[in-house]
This record gives sequence, structure tokens and C-alpha cells, in this order.
Amino acid sequence: MAKKHLSPFSEAHKLSKTSTLLESVYNLLEWDQETYMPKDAIEYRSEQIELMASIVHKNRISPSFKKALSKLINLETGDILDTSLSPEEAACVREWRRDYNQAVKLPSSFVKLFAKTTSKSLQAWSEAKKENNFKAFAPHLEKVVTLNKKKAEYLGYKDHPYDALLDLYEPGMTTAYLTPLFARLKTSLTELLRKIEAKPKHPRDFIVNKPYEKEGQIRFGNLLLRSMGFTEGMSRLDISSHPFCNSLNPKDVRMTTRIIPNLPLSNIFSVVHEGGHGIYEAQLNETMYGSPLCSSISLGVHESQSRFWETLIGRSLPFWNHFYPLLQKEFPEQLGNTPLEEFYLAVNYVEPSLIRVEADEVTYCLHVIIRFELEKALIEGSLKVKDLPKAWNEKMKESLNISPSSDSEGCLQDIHWSMGSLGYFPTYALGNVYAAQFFACFEKSHPNWEERVAKGDLLFIRQWLKENLHKYGRQYSPLEMIKKITGQEVEEKFYVQYLESKYKKLYNL
Amino acid sequence: MAKKHLSPFSEAHKLSKTSTLLESVYNLLEWDQETYMPKDAIEYRSEQIELMASIVHKNRISPSFKKALSKLINLETGDILDTSLSPEEAACVREWRRDYNQAVKLPSSFVKLFAKTTSKSLQAWSEAKKENNFKAFAPHLEKVVTLNKKKAEYLGYKDHPYDALLDLYEPGMTTAYLTPLFARLKTSLTELLRKIEAKPKHPRDFIVNKPYEKEGQIRFGNLLLRSMGFTEGMSRLDISSHPFCNSLNPKDVRMTTRIIPNLPLSNIFSVVHEGGHGIYEAQLNETMYGSPLCSSISLGVHESQSRFWETLIGRSLPFWNHFYPLLQKEFPEQLGNTPLEEFYLAVNYVEPSLIRVEADEVTYCLHVIIRFELEKALIEGSLKVKDLPKAWNEKMKESLNISPSSDSEGCLQDIHWSMGSLGYFPTYALGNVYAAQFFACFEKSHPNWEERVAKGDLLFIRQWLKENLHKYGRQYSPLEMIKKITGQEVEEKFYVQYLESKYKKLYNL
Repeated sequence: MAKKHLSPFSEAHKLSKTSTLLESVYNLLEWDQETYMPKDAIEYRSEQIELMASIVHKNRISPSFKKALSKLINLETGDILDTSLSPEEAACVREWRRDYNQAVKLPSSFVKLFAKTTSKSLQAWSEAKKENNFKAFAPHLEKVVTLNKKKAEYLGYKDHPYDALLDLYEPGMTTAYLTPLFARLKTSLTELLRKIEAKPKHPRDFIVNKPYEKEGQIRFGNLLLRSMGFTEGMSRLDISSHPFCNSLNPKDVRMTTRIIPNLPLSNIFSVVHEGGHGIYEAQLNETMYGSPLCSSISLGVHESQSRFWETLIGRSLPFWNHFYPLLQKEFPEQLGNTPLEEFYLAVNYVEPSLIRVEADEVTYCLHVIIRFELEKALIEGSLKVKDLPKAWNEKMKESLNISPSSDSEGCLQDIHWSMGSLGYFPTYALGNVYAAQFFACFEKSHPNWEERVAKGDLLFIRQWLKENLHKYGRQYSPLEMIKKITGQEVEEKFYVQYLESKYKKLYNL
Repeated sequence: MAKKHLSPFSEAHKLSKTSTLLESVYNLLEWDQETYMPKDAIEYRSEQIELMASIVHKNRISPSFKKALSKLINLETGDILDTSLSPEEAACVREWRRDYNQAVKLPSSFVKLFAKTTSKSLQAWSEAKKENNFKAFAPHLEKVVTLNKKKAEYLGYKDHPYDALLDLYEPGMTTAYLTPLFARLKTSLTELLRKIEAKPKHPRDFIVNKPYEKEGQIRFGNLLLRSMGFTEGMSRLDISSHPFCNSLNPKDVRMTTRIIPNLPLSNIFSVVHEGGHGIYEAQLNETMYGSPLCSSISLGVHESQSRFWETLIGRSLPFWNHFYPLLQKEFPEQLGNTPLEEFYLAVNYVEPSLIRVEADEVTYCLHVIIRFELEKALIEGSLKVKDLPKAWNEKMKESLNISPSSDSEGCLQDIHWSMGSLGYFPTYALGNVYAAQFFACFEKSHPNWEERVAKGDLLFIRQWLKENLHKYGRQYSPLEMIKKITGQEVEEKFYVQYLESKYKKLYNL
């Protein structure tokens, strides 16, 4: 048989699709590990995952892919060489180049050393957290910081080594942009928090001290996902110790939740949050599967989708106008006597707390900004690892006016640093900032959204997000995309305004 | 860093382990497809599976593996070159050579054509079965037969082309050995069946016409697996449309069952059957993971393990002495008034039926032998595809004294031929034959087995199987292994004697 002749673009797409398929197999290994894998199999699973990761990497930088890509774009300068490419294809090629160059910049010996070091540090962290022993973790974290500095040098940067790390998770985002933005956000949030703290607390015993049975919680989680447009044919909801969304492809979107009998809101907002991630994955442009045009833009934009659903929609009054009676029906004993207004207040309860993942929407970003400031200082060298607990506790006191009684509830609480991920945290706060900025536009497009949501209609929200964001994949950079959708640069003011206006009403500020 | 120097054996083992790990990833894709994958994802799944299969194949015949292997054994002649190898290692190398030579004998263009053809024929079969339309399937089956003949030529054989196909599933087994063995077995089984048919039927309404709720069935399934020695840490039981066992490694053994509310025995014997497969996988020699010494010998031997548990243990009176009260406890309404003796008779109900997978232990092998005779004739060319339905129905009449009213219940019932698997069916009957031959030895080792099983002790059976079979992996060929364990060649007489003695009592023959 004669070999079919593919255009250079199709050739690159074909090779890229193979890498994407391999990545999706990798994803299944991860999903399975967190859901159904028998726990004794963990060592084999680590080997499977390491092997698949190396095969994906090998494919992404294969000579054949480089050859195909080199016909389309100058890998050094970024000049497009194939003038027949459509604007979408040219954008796709630009992103392939970005990924390729990033992948080849790190020597494989460094990648191996990084993997080995973080694997050990992850283990050390897990034990140190259990035993509240920061000192045991410190030498590992020092290595992680050193390797991240090294990584920044390999990847290259213009102004600040932290930029190189940020760019891995949020392409184009810089320390210079983020530092003042987060400083302003911190000031606004702290002010708002002080005002709220001065007001009396709302009761919420009914959602923190009564058992909600597991089956009912799962049923309600599935009801929420169906309302968000997920069908059984293309999605799943399972249980894991930490909720996540793992999408193998747009027809196989898997979300997990966590069931805590006495905290039913944990499940509910996990489901809506992960559902927001899932909708993004499900609405990517399938015809370009295996290319950057069928990929999410960045972690920050991904988080904006989950927070859009979880907070702006999921913690709104119209949402609960529709869903609260359904929740009451599922849990008549627990909620039968609680009016909607009281439930809505409980859903939006604000209180400084020690743990980031449990924080409300007013305090959440403060947790993130603390981490940003600390990891930036670690990379700059202005903070020593050994001084981290003290710096952490001071910042907690300053922002949230509370202090952890142990490092386990303090600087040891998150897994990220132990895994070697510095530069990742800011995307959590950016997600909230982007979400509110998107939401302001969405509100203009759909001034009657509250009415529709109160009737249980959520599909028009999906549609708006698809048309404005999801269908583009990585055709634009995060910052370009936000400008395209909202007509403005990234600004924290939309998020601050949303919170101020909402909590003014809720707390009679 | 200087590269560590491995011995040629360790080098081959390392490369082989990579292939095994990749295969286990492939297994996860298959397991997930049958259990939890959202159904719309099927096209992506096919692509993932095809891709992983090709990567596994590429690894198994890689130049580096060939190089490592060539230092240990002469690939042409099979002469061991590395005289420092232990007998176990030499056996391992011999099996690597077998696999390697088999893998390279088939040109990759043929492998692709075979995959493409059988993928289409599988689809055509599925529709033809639904619509009871053999004619629509016939042209596909013709292609499958032609390709299997071609495959036999590529693989090579001494006496009969069917030998080459048989050898794929049951190494060393030949048509010349099988034909008289199956002929004798057929005669004995048919005689026994005629005698049983002359006797009055036992009642069994209570296990075919009452609903047994799903949760209770699953609970009982798990209870059986725990008694067979499976822990939650290294095994799973899930639901799928056809029961199977899929082992990713000895620490990750996954079994599935099927729940039919009105047929509780379907679940029970599926669990014990798949559990038998699972015990084999779980008891392989983990220290040699990734080599033939940590692999099962053959499909026939694998099936012997599932049938050993399902029939010789699971359908025995001592087994139900212990488990029947537990089953009654789970289903007091359905079984509370049925005495053990009656239940035991129902468990061993014999009746000719049309469908192989539903057959009892007396008729089961007759179904298999029909398929063996037919596929052998197809390969020889003495039977034309178009004449298959007629030949099928005649043979059913001859052996089982019943005739299917449609091809869907006749020659279209099984998936195997449509998948291109000719030479596979005999292993089902061999499994029964081997199992009874092993059992005769087991009984000699443990003359008090009935007493122990009646107390719920099953672990000594596991142990016996491990010591005598599982721990060896592929150190011996199937026929060598059987000789080693039982001191005899493969003979059907043990199976026939077991059935005759059991059913003589049950039916007062």
C-alpha cells in the first residue's frame, strides 16, 4: 500500500494526537488510583505512571514531530513558515511550538532528578504533616526550592525567575503583573472581612451538625450534574478522598466528590466546582482533538470555570430558589424546617479559618496570596526555608487574624510544594478574579439570568461559556482571551465588587 | 552518572518488565471499558487500546530486547548461550525466545490487516446475531478463516495447520493429541448425559423463579471472595455484562460478576469461577514480575484453575455445607424453607441447553467439542462457511439431542470466531480435563479436604495450587507441568470419573 500523503499540518496533528491519546491513558491511571485501585497495588501503579509519563514526553519531543512542526513554524523565532495556514491553525502551531520548546528546554537528566527528588519530598511531607514535624520536611523543601530555581534558569525568563515558573501554569502571567494585583486584592478582601467579622454570625447548625446519609448526598450530586448538562453517556461521578475532575476526552469526563455525613455542603460545592471544570473539558472543540485547539488554556482559566459555577452560580440565591426544595425533598428530616433564606445565609457563611480548601469565598484568596508571597520570596532567596513557619504564621495573623496552632494546620497543609509545584498557587486566586470578570460580561448578555436559574435552567450558562471561551481551546493566550471576552485587562475589581455587593446585602454592612 | 552495568539476563528482564507494565496499562483500559467507562467514549477507547497494543508489540520485538536476548539464547536454534543461567532462568529465556519468535513471525502488515478485518467482522457478527442473519456474517467469517490459515502458515507447523493456532493459546498442544482425546470425552459425556436424561428432574424453582436482590448478591459474592483469600487491598469485585477476571499485577486482581435477579447461581458461580482465575494471578511469583516466570502457562491451565474452584470445589456438597447457611441468612425469604440437600441438587442440575455459557458441567464440554470439530474442519477446508449453520445444528442434535431454532442461539452465539480467535475454544474443555486431573492429586494430598471445606476453610486449597502450579509461572510447558504435578499425560478419564461418580449419587444412576 502506498503511504497516504498528509499535509504538514495534518502530519503534526496526527503525531500530536498520539501524544494526547497517551496522555489520556495516563489520566486513566491517575483516576483509577484515586477511585477504584486496590491500595496494595500502589508500587506497580507508580511504575505504570512513571513509564507512561516518559512515553508521553518522548512522543511530544520526537524527531518526527519536530520535523513536521519545523515545516510549519521556525522553532527558534516563532515565524510561521506555512502561509496556507488558517488563523486557527497558525495559533495551533504557535502553541505546539511553545509546548515543544518548553519540553526540550529541560534536560532529561534534570527531569529525572526533579521527579526523584519530589517523589521523596512528597513522602517526607506526608509524614511530616502527620507528625507536625516541619524540621523533617525542611531539607526536602530546600532541595525543591533549589531545583525550581534551576528549572527557572533552564526555562528562561526576562525579569524574575518566578516568571518562568508562573508561565508553566499560567502562560504569559508575570510577577510584575501579579504582585500589585494581589496586593490590591488583599487590601480589599481584608477590609471586607473586617466588616463582616464585626457583624453577628448567622446560624448554620443544621448543615454542620446533622448527619446527611451518603446515598442521598450522591443522588443529589448526580441531580446537580444532570442539571448542569452532564449525561450518563459521557460523564461519571465517583468518590475519592479529595474531589477532582479528570477528563480523558470530551466524551469521558470524570468528576469525584467527597462525602462527609455532617457537612453536606462539602459534597454539593465539590460537585458544582468539579462540574465547572468538567463542562470546560466537555465543550472543547472535539474536531481538533489531539491539538491545542481542543485543550484548556491554563490552570487559572480552568479554575475560573469551576469557581464560576461553584460560587457565582452555585452560591447564588436564584440557584437555591430552584435547588433548595429538591435538597429538602432528599433530606426532609434535616432541612424540612429550615427556610430558604436561612439556608442561603449558611451557604455563604464567612469565617476566617486555617485551612485553604475549607475557606469561604471572601477569605479564600487571602490564603492563596499568602502562599504566593512566600514562594516568591523563597525563589528570590529573601526567605529561608527554615524561617517559613514563622513567616507563614505572621502572614496568617496579618490577613486572617488567626494563627495555626501547628505547622500541620499551617505551612504543611498543602501538597503542592512537596510535589515541586511552585508557581501553581496563584492560579487559584486568578481563577476567582477571572470568573468574576467573565461573570460581569455574562450578566450583560443575560440580564435575566437570575430568573432563568431560579427555574432550574442552567444550560444557557454552559452555552455562553462555550461560545465565549471553551470552543477556542488555546487559540488565544489566557490574557488575550480575557481581553477578547471582557474587553479589558485582568483586574481584581470585578471580584471585589461582586463580593462587596453580595455580602453587603447578606450581612447588612 | 555512569550507567549501571546489568547482566544480560537482568537487562532482558528489565526490558521485558517494561512490556509487562505497558500490557497492564492496556488491561486497565479493557477493565475500565467493561465496568465504568461512559459509553459515548467508545471510539476514543478503541483508539487508546489500538495504540497501547501497538506500543506493547513494538516493545516486545524491540532491537534492544533482541540484542539482550541474543546474548542468552540462540534465537534460531534455541541453544542456551549463557551457561551461568540457573534452570529457572534458562526456562525463562526459552519462553522469551518463544514469545519473541512468535511476535516477529507475523509481518506487521498482516497484523494490521488481521486487526482491521476482525474489527469489522466483530461489528458484523454483533448485528448478525441481533438480527439472526448468518448470511450477513458469512463473508466476514470467510475472511477470518482465510486469514487464520495464512496465520498458521506464517507461524509454521509440523502436521496440521490447526496446530499453529492451538499453540497460540495452549503451547505444545496438537490436533493429533486433541482429536482422539475429545472423541473419547464426547462419547463418555454423551453416555452419561443419556443416563441422566432418563431420570426424573429435581425441583429448582426456588433458584430460578424468585428475585434475589442485587445488594445481597453482591454482598454474598464478596463473602465468597474473602473466603477464597482475597483481601480488599489487592482485589476488586465489580459488575459487567459478561463476568471476567482482569489482573493488572499480583497486587491488583479485578474480578467482575453479573447480577441476574432471578438467577442467583449465575452470580455465585461467576464469582467462584473468576475467583479461581484470580487466585492464579495473585499467587504468581512476584519477585520475577515482568518475566515468563511470573505469568500463567496457558489458557487451558488458566481455565483449569477457574473450573477447579467453580465446579470441583464450588459445586461440591462440603462447600455448600458451609456456605448454604450463609446464603440462607442473606436470603431468608427465598431459601429459608429449602433444605441443603435440595439446594445441592439444584446447584448440580443437568439439562441439555443451547447456550454454552449457561451449560452445566456434564454438557459444557460437549458444546466446546462441537466448536473444535467445526473450526478444525473450517481450517482444513472440509467445511465451507456457508454450510456452518447446518453442520452446527446436526452436531447439536447428535451430542445434546436438541436443535437451536435460530442461528443466534446456534453458531452465532459466541464472539470468538468474529474476533478471529480460532484454536481458542479447546482450552475451555481442556480446562475441565486438567482441573479434574489436578483434583485427583489434590485429593491424595488432602484426603480430609471435604471436612476442612465443610468448615469453610479454603485457604489450604489455594496453598496447594500455589505450591504445585502457580509459583512456577511458565517454567514448564503446559504438558510438562501436568506431567510434573500428576505424574501422567493429559487424560480425560479423571474428568469422566469425577462426573460419573458424582452424578451417579445425585441421580441414582
